[in-house]
Amino acid sequence: MANKDTPIRIVQYGLGPIGKGAAKLILEKAGSGRLELVGAIDIDPAKANKTVGEVVGTSSDVVISSNAEKVLAEAQPDLVIHTTSSFLPQVEGQLTQCIRAGVSVISSTEELPYPFDRHPSIANNLDTLARKYGVTILGTGVNPGYAMDVLALVATGVCTSVRSVAVRRRVDASLRRLPLQRKIGAGITVEEFNERREQGGLGHVGLVESLRLVMHGLGWPIKKMSESLEPVVAESEVKTPYLTVPPDRVAGIKHTAEAYLDGRIAVSLDLRMYVGANDPVDRVVVDGDPPIDLVVQGGIFGDTATVGALVNAIPQVINASPGLRTVTDLPIPRCFLPGIPYHAPLEL
Amino acid sequence: MANKDTPIRIVQYGLGPIGKGAAKLILEKAGSGRLELVGAIDIDPAKANKTVGEVVGTSSDVVISSNAEKVLAEAQPDLVIHTTSSFLPQVEGQLTQCIRAGVSVISSTEELPYPFDRHPSIANNLDTLARKYGVTILGTGVNPGYAMDVLALVATGVCTSVRSVAVRRRVDASLRRLPLQRKIGAGITVEEFNERREQGGLGHVGLVESLRLVMHGLGWPIKKMSESLEPVVAESEVKTPYLTVPPDRVAGIKHTAEAYLDGRIAVSLDLRMYVGANDPVDRVVVDGDPPIDLVVQGGIFGDTATVGALVNAIPQVINASPGLRTVTDLPIPRCFLPGIPYHAPLEL
Repeated sequence: MANKDTPIRIVQYGLGPIGKGAAKLILEKAGSGRLELVGAIDIDPAKANKTVGEVVGTSSDVVISSNAEKVLAEAQPDLVIHTTSSFLPQVEGQLTQCIRAGVSVISSTEELPYPFDRHPSIANNLDTLARKYGVTILGTGVNPGYAMDVLALVATGVCTSVRSVAVRRRVDASLRRLPLQRKIGAGITVEEFNERREQGGLGHVGLVESLRLVMHGLGWPIKKMSESLEPVVAESEVKTPYLTVPPDRVAGIKHTAEAYLDGRIAVSLDLRMYVGANDPVDRVVVDGDPPIDLVVQGGIFGDTATVGALVNAIPQVINASPGLRTVTDLPIPRCFLPGIPYHAPLEL
Repeated sequence: MANKDTPIRIVQYGLGPIGKGAAKLILEKAGSGRLELVGAIDIDPAKANKTVGEVVGTSSDVVISSNAEKVLAEAQPDLVIHTTSSFLPQVEGQLTQCIRAGVSVISSTEELPYPFDRHPSIANNLDTLARKYGVTILGTGVNPGYAMDVLALVATGVCTSVRSVAVRRRVDASLRRLPLQRKIGAGITVEEFNERREQGGLGHVGLVESLRLVMHGLGWPIKKMSESLEPVVAESEVKTPYLTVPPDRVAGIKHTAEAYLDGRIAVSLDLRMYVGANDPVDRVVVDGDPPIDLVVQGGIFGDTATVGALVNAIPQVINASPGLRTVTDLPIPRCFLPGIPYHAPLEL
């Protein structure tokens, strides 16, 4: 556990677009004396043995290593920021390795923010192990972790009753990183979309996790759920910095999920993420007393926000009780070390 | 501390408009088996010895007593919902009496959500005593406690940096209870307003507490603050269920407060509360990365929301560590027992 008078020692695990953004932000906030980047892990041979400075473009002599065990043992971090994969089974070993080293973890793994239903056995293992080693594990990010779950719950925070919660998020994928544009099928045909949907390689990982977080936070059991994934088709040509989508090709996804209670929809999530979405927005409508209609005008820009969500959780996780936690267990999110500017746009 | 298998035992302390709403809501939610109203305290002789049922219009045999010590000893509550006064010095004795009885408190006292600067000695006493007796004390409500502080902090939750936060709340006081309409000077002349302002009897108690909560939550020290209170003058006649405001008379208040950092405004709050405000709204604008423009369209209706804030904090306070806490210490707010409808409009 970090001493209050010494900086929190951080290892960055994974230096893809989000991981690079997190490392860069930690380096910038390190000037406060509250944080320190003490190690970096990436399995990519092209990154190993380079310095973090070379990879993220900010001064840092920390050398990237592909040997996680060695980094954890030598750097003795308080906490790992973990950004390697969306899927929990793929990262379980990485997480347990951190836990056994006595290190808390904040991970962007989209299946981690509420893993108890999709991966009950892994969730139980992580929780048991984390308690044994006295560390805290948290999955978060902008979505899941904030836009479609935390904001939805906070919107009900002064309601005396709630009948239903509807969450809408429309993202202009034109401005997002290329891997994300690929994940939503931008540029492929509707036929390809339908094929890839069957194979399970499309859609937003973590939407159902947000649904479960909201139901869990409200104390509502999930008795029935539905989910659908449809293509959003481009009406006219859309150009992004990375690709061009001709008319009638796929611009992105409409991914929805609903949880039912007593035969009616209790919580519904509607995520549209496509290139050429000109009016991005986040909205939560609570049918309750009082009714709440909360809108984030212009939406929340995802890549920067995910980096923010991970880094802002650092003090919260350091102070949390041991175990596998969710964002519903932690204090209200807020910017950590807000005055440290993050001028440079993310190169993602 | 409440056992998880038995209902949380609640005493309602104060049966003014907000207290009546809280008692009624607790009675309605008691059907869940998670809550129980076990006592009620009010110093008003007109209410003492009546049942809560008679006073709030919902079935309840709980007898209201003016003897707080006796109620606390006999009812053995886990928690008191305390709604008697806006000012901390006036309620310190009531709060310490609850603490010494081993009872946690959620209070609507507007000076309690962040008392460490205005009343450092009382805050220290309450904190020390609460830790000694193993209970938790929290001040909350819709404002302070949510609209101009919690929402503002949550809006920064995915920001990598924040330069400033501006919070705007416009309330149509026409729909609010008469005591509130009086507190904002509705119907008086501008001259009377200026006189009463000098005497300190006007304005929104708790605005500066919200400002301090936001600065505290962001980790920013308050080096310089400013505050102003101006009348909003009616342009044409305004009628409310309680009173009529002729043109050129006071319709309500514009109450603002700012905190500075490095010579610039870091956090600014602007509260306009007047009869005839036709476009109520709550808005938080974060100048940060990413920028956030969060709007609650139509605003948050305050009287119901304050009752909601108090009751929704119950499980959070029951599970909190002992001491004087703020809303920034607790998990994200959300509706507690959301499925229990609150059909009847509050008669305030």
